[in-house]
Amino acid sequence: MVEKAVPENVSWISSHPIAGTEESGPEAGFSELFQNKWCILTPSKKAKEKDVKLLETFWKKIGSKVDIMDAKQHDYILSITSHIPHLIAYNIVNTSINIQNEKGSSIVKYSAGGLRDFTRIAASNPIMWRDVFIQNKKNTSEMIDKFIENLEGLKKAIENEDGKKLEEIFTKTQKIRKEIIEAGQDVSKPDFGRK
Amino acid sequence: MVEKAVPENVSWISSHPIAGTEESGPEAGFSELFQNKWCILTPSKKAKEKDVKLLETFWKKIGSKVDIMDAKQHDYILSITSHIPHLIAYNIVNTSINIQNEKGSSIVKYSAGGLRDFTRIAASNPIMWRDVFIQNKKNTSEMIDKFIENLEGLKKAIENEDGKKLEEIFTKTQKIRKEIIEAGQDVSKPDFGRK
Repeated sequence: MVEKAVPENVSWISSHPIAGTEESGPEAGFSELFQNKWCILTPSKKAKEKDVKLLETFWKKIGSKVDIMDAKQHDYILSITSHIPHLIAYNIVNTSINIQNEKGSSIVKYSAGGLRDFTRIAASNPIMWRDVFIQNKKNTSEMIDKFIENLEGLKKAIENEDGKKLEEIFTKTQKIRKEIIEAGQDVSKPDFGRK
Repeated sequence: MVEKAVPENVSWISSHPIAGTEESGPEAGFSELFQNKWCILTPSKKAKEKDVKLLETFWKKIGSKVDIMDAKQHDYILSITSHIPHLIAYNIVNTSINIQNEKGSSIVKYSAGGLRDFTRIAASNPIMWRDVFIQNKKNTSEMIDKFIENLEGLKKAIENEDGKKLEEIFTKTQKIRKEIIEAGQDVSKPDFGRK
């Protein structure tokens, strides 16, 4: 989208780190924020090779690992690794609030059983995420459909008491966490080490 | 369900803490595990008042706060604060694995953008959670429907570029996190303090 607006003589390169917390603004930064995390560069057609190199050096100097890809691929990958997780977190917390209001049962009190993890992500900046979803609506919409299709599958397995299928899926997802920790993308301490 | 199997002279009281990590077994315990967390007691009809008091004292002595309710209410509350969050986490991670396999795009590498939080919960014991969902299938199924209905609503808002609606929901969910932290059910450090 930015492509058309870039003047001929401007070497435009979009980039952002895949790192952050639920807090916003410069005060929320800390020195290890980008350490060992990936940063994606999406050079426009007008970007000069030497400027791409320069920006790559910049991110590496502050601890990031760098990947270069086009905007289309970026939007697709981020929709599943970042946008949908945020939307799902917003949605489960919103659903819980609705139930709390309807039934008067406390979700805050009993949130340590799983829900509280989602509230961290669902505390992210509302304005930024409103814009992310709308800007990437095609991929977001497609991923929601895939997510719902799989959730309907799990629902059916639960209703049919198909324990084998559930166990198979849950064992597969358990393995991925180990890979993420081995890749240095999360801490290995149980419960994120929070106490 | 247990009610019928309990002999006349047995004072049966089910109880469990709302606390834990993705790890299982006695080695995964630590002294603060139950500190300030709620424990729910669901006495059977054959439970004697003095035994309920005794069990309450037991949980309080190891740091828990205690609530007493019937099994029906317990199953309903836990379905939204614990069971659905686990199912959703399993489902987003499973959906991501499918996409990774289809498209060859790495979800491990870019997981720090949100997905990794879900992988912690989706690393929970597959056998235990298989049984939880099947035992509580009526509530689980009902909650899945509510969750999907709300997610379809978000999808529509994104497709219609209804920024106002999105912002409204995301602002509401942001507030709940503060309440959970104030209630001592999560740590206040951004990103759970993991670095």
